[in-house]
Amino acid sequence: MAEKKITSRDEDYSQWYLDIVQRAELAENSDVRGCMVIRPRGYAIWEKMQRGLDRLFKDTGHVNAYFPLFIPKSFLAREEQMAEGFAKECAVVTHYRLKAAPGKGLVVDPEAKLDEELIVRPTSETIIWNSYKNWIQSYRDLPLLINQWCNVVRWEMRTRLFLRTAEFLWQEGHTAHATQKEAEEEARQILEVYRTFAEDWMAMPVLTGPKSEGQKFPGAIYTLCIEAMMQDRRALQAGTSHFLGQNFAKAFDVQFQSSEGKLEYAWATSWGVSTRLVGGLIMTHSDDQGLIVPPRLAPIHVVIVPIGRKDDELKRVMDACDRLAVALREQPREEFFGYEPISVCVDRDLDKSPGFRFNEWELRGVPIRVELGPKDLEKNACVLARRDLPGKESKMMGVPLAEAPSRIASMLRQMQADLFDRARKFSDANSYEVNSYDEFKKRIEEPGGFLWAHWDGSRETEDRISAETKATIRCIPFNRPKETGACIVTGKPSEGRVVFAKAY
Amino acid sequence: MAEKKITSRDEDYSQWYLDIVQRAELAENSDVRGCMVIRPRGYAIWEKMQRGLDRLFKDTGHVNAYFPLFIPKSFLAREEQMAEGFAKECAVVTHYRLKAAPGKGLVVDPEAKLDEELIVRPTSETIIWNSYKNWIQSYRDLPLLINQWCNVVRWEMRTRLFLRTAEFLWQEGHTAHATQKEAEEEARQILEVYRTFAEDWMAMPVLTGPKSEGQKFPGAIYTLCIEAMMQDRRALQAGTSHFLGQNFAKAFDVQFQSSEGKLEYAWATSWGVSTRLVGGLIMTHSDDQGLIVPPRLAPIHVVIVPIGRKDDELKRVMDACDRLAVALREQPREEFFGYEPISVCVDRDLDKSPGFRFNEWELRGVPIRVELGPKDLEKNACVLARRDLPGKESKMMGVPLAEAPSRIASMLRQMQADLFDRARKFSDANSYEVNSYDEFKKRIEEPGGFLWAHWDGSRETEDRISAETKATIRCIPFNRPKETGACIVTGKPSEGRVVFAKAY
Repeated sequence: MAEKKITSRDEDYSQWYLDIVQRAELAENSDVRGCMVIRPRGYAIWEKMQRGLDRLFKDTGHVNAYFPLFIPKSFLAREEQMAEGFAKECAVVTHYRLKAAPGKGLVVDPEAKLDEELIVRPTSETIIWNSYKNWIQSYRDLPLLINQWCNVVRWEMRTRLFLRTAEFLWQEGHTAHATQKEAEEEARQILEVYRTFAEDWMAMPVLTGPKSEGQKFPGAIYTLCIEAMMQDRRALQAGTSHFLGQNFAKAFDVQFQSSEGKLEYAWATSWGVSTRLVGGLIMTHSDDQGLIVPPRLAPIHVVIVPIGRKDDELKRVMDACDRLAVALREQPREEFFGYEPISVCVDRDLDKSPGFRFNEWELRGVPIRVELGPKDLEKNACVLARRDLPGKESKMMGVPLAEAPSRIASMLRQMQADLFDRARKFSDANSYEVNSYDEFKKRIEEPGGFLWAHWDGSRETEDRISAETKATIRCIPFNRPKETGACIVTGKPSEGRVVFAKAY
Repeated sequence: MAEKKITSRDEDYSQWYLDIVQRAELAENSDVRGCMVIRPRGYAIWEKMQRGLDRLFKDTGHVNAYFPLFIPKSFLAREEQMAEGFAKECAVVTHYRLKAAPGKGLVVDPEAKLDEELIVRPTSETIIWNSYKNWIQSYRDLPLLINQWCNVVRWEMRTRLFLRTAEFLWQEGHTAHATQKEAEEEARQILEVYRTFAEDWMAMPVLTGPKSEGQKFPGAIYTLCIEAMMQDRRALQAGTSHFLGQNFAKAFDVQFQSSEGKLEYAWATSWGVSTRLVGGLIMTHSDDQGLIVPPRLAPIHVVIVPIGRKDDELKRVMDACDRLAVALREQPREEFFGYEPISVCVDRDLDKSPGFRFNEWELRGVPIRVELGPKDLEKNACVLARRDLPGKESKMMGVPLAEAPSRIASMLRQMQADLFDRARKFSDANSYEVNSYDEFKKRIEEPGGFLWAHWDGSRETEDRISAETKATIRCIPFNRPKETGACIVTGKPSEGRVVFAKAY
């Protein structure tokens, strides 16, 4: 497994990413165009993400539900922007049966043609608001705060594992409210949930703020986003929260009686993050040795590697490793670990050399490695190594076995904080102000990063910059300083800088 | 909500079931033919089921992964029985784009026709074994013990919420092994996991054993099942575990080098349970007042209903209710509750009468109701009512508030055990031996239930009984007594009784 070296980031960032995804066995392309297989080690990270996010959603009053995979074609057509945005890239079910044809194997049965074609959901606003119509009569029925975890399909032509695939997994929240104010507060609250998850779980710093008109979701009044910087200085849109106004309530005729007895259309939000986050996690932290996973999302927190040659010696070492594993699993359950036990693996693949095994566990991104050999055992001690601090000098030698469990728990917490700090420093170091279009065009190519620049607010200028530089407006940050200026392209007045970058 | 009475079981069992599903807001039919919307209260039960099962799968060494939704038509064709079993009821994707047509709205774009049609997965053996081909080279790569949680589609013509729908949610395990023995042990181990889950979580007693040839899964050598009895004495197939032999390894050319250096085909199992379990749970325990949910799967364990009229009095009652809720949530986390806090809801809908609210919470199936009014508060006490023990006489009056949390925790455990006992007694009371075909034909109609009868083992006799009585062989129970006899239809020798019933 660890035989072929991973391409280095400097040599070819894109290949480095694919090498990690493949060699750490996170995902692979399937024989179905554009669809990926999420392998167990990749899926385990997604499961931890789901747990963390789901807890945050529930703590803010949301519940889960499930709506149909299929959307009647006519539903999509009802909301104009949605039809425009998704019709060009959707999977269409036209028949409901195959039949055996002599000499041809299975063929589509022409007798089994659907009266109305079904679209495999690219997103579920339409089918969900069609249900909400029956659930919302009075202001007493509001708010509805519903999320679903599911698969969606968008027929992408150029795909990349986790980052852009025809089918992907995600959560989509769809809420209905009695007032505009409440819906806007919801959209903002969810953005804060996403920021919290990105920063405190994924250790991935993000910008927060609205998208420009050119980048918003089809059907939204406005879109809020979290935007992260990858190690190649490109931006990754990591989550979006949309204020939808009354667009879907009007398209699906969802009216309710207000507390004043008037008939009003409901106000909506929708919001989602997807398996794309796994790609973002990989690209934020990993290095040329392989995957690095922040401890809160690591499927395995600790690997214990027994070292020894002779059979009798190895037996004693193994027993000590197993005892340590039990002690770790029996540590008190903490909120930091989602009230689950610390997850420990004892490496029993003793045919390979210790060096080979160390490399393999580094490639897989396990946060803490414990090394335990006969000499350590004599001293009732072990060696601890943190995945994000390579090199012998950063190893903790001679840690007493009795202290190891609590030391490991605090190392995991420290590693989580350090990964975030490192990523934040990288993102800060590659964010800067630019004040002319010439400078912009030069620096967007080299070194890249987040360019804070004045923009006149027009769609026309936005499109021109994007066409000429391939950079897009990623975010109009909430925390931008108050500063008037002149658009770098047109010289027209600007109320503040926006963030441009090349993006995934 | 609790205004219209639920149809009683005696009056119309089928309508009683639908009334509960609708009135307890568990699910509803969608505008997409055969697809259901699982509403938040229904989905919350499914989530608890997922948590419980997922833990059992992981404790037996399984990991989760995710494979594509779409299956190329040619994959389905490769395994003959599979093609026969599923081709007649599958959703077929033929195009990947819509376009706007003047005057017609959105139409399928004929330019965007797929070269090969894609089937929306009815089950994933084919696509998964196509991946396993790349993952399995040596006996060292085995076993593969993989599960996925996902949606599947089978184009059912007659649907019923939870029990039979065109799209449903499920888990499907797919394992690969080096030997036949190991694969057969796996199929048996999973059946034991299913039995444990059905009996210890769902409180639903089940028969376990193989299906007859006529009832096995297309592509299996044999199918093991858990089979439960509903309150109308019909059988519900609640989970299946298939030994697939080398059928899929041969269809997808999955060979590995054995420890003796020989090239061999891998041995397979697959196994699944679905949202159908939610239907089984409803039909096993609920009564004419509404839903009853076993505590281990109850999304809300306890509802606290404050009682009071005057404002100042109500304020003190409310405060006491809130304090009790906090105390309940702070009870030590126990394995019985999946290490999650006890889930408590304080009823704040004070416009309605206490009686109305009691009915409503009964309809929703919350296991324990706490009643707390000014007179209780004077005595620092409360009243506890168990959902499965209706009537005033079974209420616990005057329970000291300080003792309530631990009393409630033990009541929840007791209720779990009692529900199982009640269901087991019902199932036992409606299972009996029949010794002639005349008796069989009479008793399968009235009273119904599980009929243990001798059968000659032939497909022909099985089909005849099924055609003439609509009863099928549900299971050849592992625990059937050793007893030779004569087939009730043909008089030919039989090695033991099998269980017949009408089934969902």
